[in-house]
Amino acid sequence: MIQATYQRIVLASRPRGSVTADNFRLETVSTPTLLEPQQVLVRNQFLSLDPYMRGRMSLVKSYAQPQELNDTMIGATAGVVVQSSHADFNPGDSVTGMLGWSEMGVAPGEQLRKVDARQIPLSAYLGIVGMPGVTAWYGVNQILQAKAGQTLVVSAASGAVGSVVGQLARLLGCRVVGIAGGEQKCRYVVEQLGFDACVDYKKYATPEELLAALTAATPAGIDLLFENVGGNVLDASLAQLNAFARIALCGMISGYNGQPQPLKNTNRLLTMRVMLQGFIVTEHPDIWPQALSELAALVAGKQVIYHETIADGLAAAPAAFMGLLSGQNLGKQLVKLN
Amino acid sequence: MIQATYQRIVLASRPRGSVTADNFRLETVSTPTLLEPQQVLVRNQFLSLDPYMRGRMSLVKSYAQPQELNDTMIGATAGVVVQSSHADFNPGDSVTGMLGWSEMGVAPGEQLRKVDARQIPLSAYLGIVGMPGVTAWYGVNQILQAKAGQTLVVSAASGAVGSVVGQLARLLGCRVVGIAGGEQKCRYVVEQLGFDACVDYKKYATPEELLAALTAATPAGIDLLFENVGGNVLDASLAQLNAFARIALCGMISGYNGQPQPLKNTNRLLTMRVMLQGFIVTEHPDIWPQALSELAALVAGKQVIYHETIADGLAAAPAAFMGLLSGQNLGKQLVKLN
Repeated sequence: MIQATYQRIVLASRPRGSVTADNFRLETVSTPTLLEPQQVLVRNQFLSLDPYMRGRMSLVKSYAQPQELNDTMIGATAGVVVQSSHADFNPGDSVTGMLGWSEMGVAPGEQLRKVDARQIPLSAYLGIVGMPGVTAWYGVNQILQAKAGQTLVVSAASGAVGSVVGQLARLLGCRVVGIAGGEQKCRYVVEQLGFDACVDYKKYATPEELLAALTAATPAGIDLLFENVGGNVLDASLAQLNAFARIALCGMISGYNGQPQPLKNTNRLLTMRVMLQGFIVTEHPDIWPQALSELAALVAGKQVIYHETIADGLAAAPAAFMGLLSGQNLGKQLVKLN
Repeated sequence: MIQATYQRIVLASRPRGSVTADNFRLETVSTPTLLEPQQVLVRNQFLSLDPYMRGRMSLVKSYAQPQELNDTMIGATAGVVVQSSHADFNPGDSVTGMLGWSEMGVAPGEQLRKVDARQIPLSAYLGIVGMPGVTAWYGVNQILQAKAGQTLVVSAASGAVGSVVGQLARLLGCRVVGIAGGEQKCRYVVEQLGFDACVDYKKYATPEELLAALTAATPAGIDLLFENVGGNVLDASLAQLNAFARIALCGMISGYNGQPQPLKNTNRLLTMRVMLQGFIVTEHPDIWPQALSELAALVAGKQVIYHETIADGLAAAPAAFMGLLSGQNLGKQLVKLN
């Protein structure tokens, strides 16, 4: 029997500066009793939390429409079909979708993806075999075109995207250097993920000290940069770029609260004849099948590993999201729904 | 009869901040009396002054080796052969080369280019049918891939490169907006070169006012940006970029004296999924023949025009160069040698 109500979290107000708990509101709503043709009712088991959501909470002109006030917070989800009026979906099927911060949701079948949760855990389809993994794959292969012997630097190296970037580049024969915040993350990046080195940017009080540490970790300079952070971290990497360096610009999380993020070393883009490409992986649907199939094989074969930080229950989502934005998580941040 | 001595200008000291007259020294040297095999002795008639020379005067790590102290200042030249031990060159031939700030010079024949100074004036081979023209051609066609209907913005629009960029893009059907310093330059850009609009950046006291003027001139945003200036001018253009904009990063002349040039609107590179490519046209020798042949045809057919600012005599070169760096010239800055 399907329960009569479920809980969801809506955007209650837009952040002024940092995200706060009162930007969110937990609501109880009625479960739909009748599905329209082709619709599927899903009980979510995992909710994905991702940095891009911060952008949607603001009204600033960006690559996506802002999230509407009082609507369910946007987000990718993984769960199980409970009712279906679509021929391709049956109760019990494992699916991923974009059902948002919600215990249940209804979507047309064509907006859901059926996944095999036997060889690979369901939650991994929100991370390494989902959007973050494909983001890493696209940046490393299509934009950076990583080759053996090159030095690749990735910021937010212990995160859902960065951890995959470094592992993919290592498999291609690159020397891989991570930048991460904190000793624990750096240890994880080197000892667990197998990066060649990691720079803990929190350890250095000034941009000059950060640059000195990065220079020591990249004695041959930087050929490829996968940027997730922006600000001072990006500025240090710019200063170490080699001639004909390539940059995949994936995120600038340090500026998500609207802080000014002036870059000083932009002259390097000219003097080193750099190619920089900003990108959003959802705009490249053509590469998803190949990327997902390669990533699934690498995960199944244990050639790449991943870590998850899991918050418990829908009500924990806002705090977990604020933690993600301040770098509290290790690897992929998820919410497990009960 | 060949004169026994000639004059040249050497780099006497490296600039600290702005270039000053005492960074240069005028010298009298002896004309070589005997050429080695394959060498050619040239009397220069025109000397090209270009912003890149500022970079060579410093010791800062850049794309090229710094200019040595007490060596002839580097630079492109156009002149006439006076003596030759190379079978392909005869006295009286018009040639271009890299003989520097000097009334005469000797070079191996393979470092000279024989040009036809009948249909196109000799000086044009240092500008629109030389390195500046090829720079414009490469940026517009190869990096920006300009297409009809797109809005292209070019800074230093009245300069040797910018003036060609805008005219080439107009021929391709772009809406072309220049950015230039001063009312006279802007009038030239619109009335003589045929740009659709021009923003006089010197007219605005704050970045906000500059951005408002640029926004008014680019009501449909910016699809293509050919950047020669950097700093606040680049920052304003970044704020107006459309999704999937492309940037050809050719110069950042506003920072040549080592001033900090922080860019604030770099988040647009991400949110608008921008492709940026820094470049130096001498690294793309493969495209020169096609570019030069197309440019020569456009000049001969009067489909593109050019303007020259000509200083008189070698001794005038340092002041003319300082004028170039502070934007005193209109179009291509040359020195005519006597």
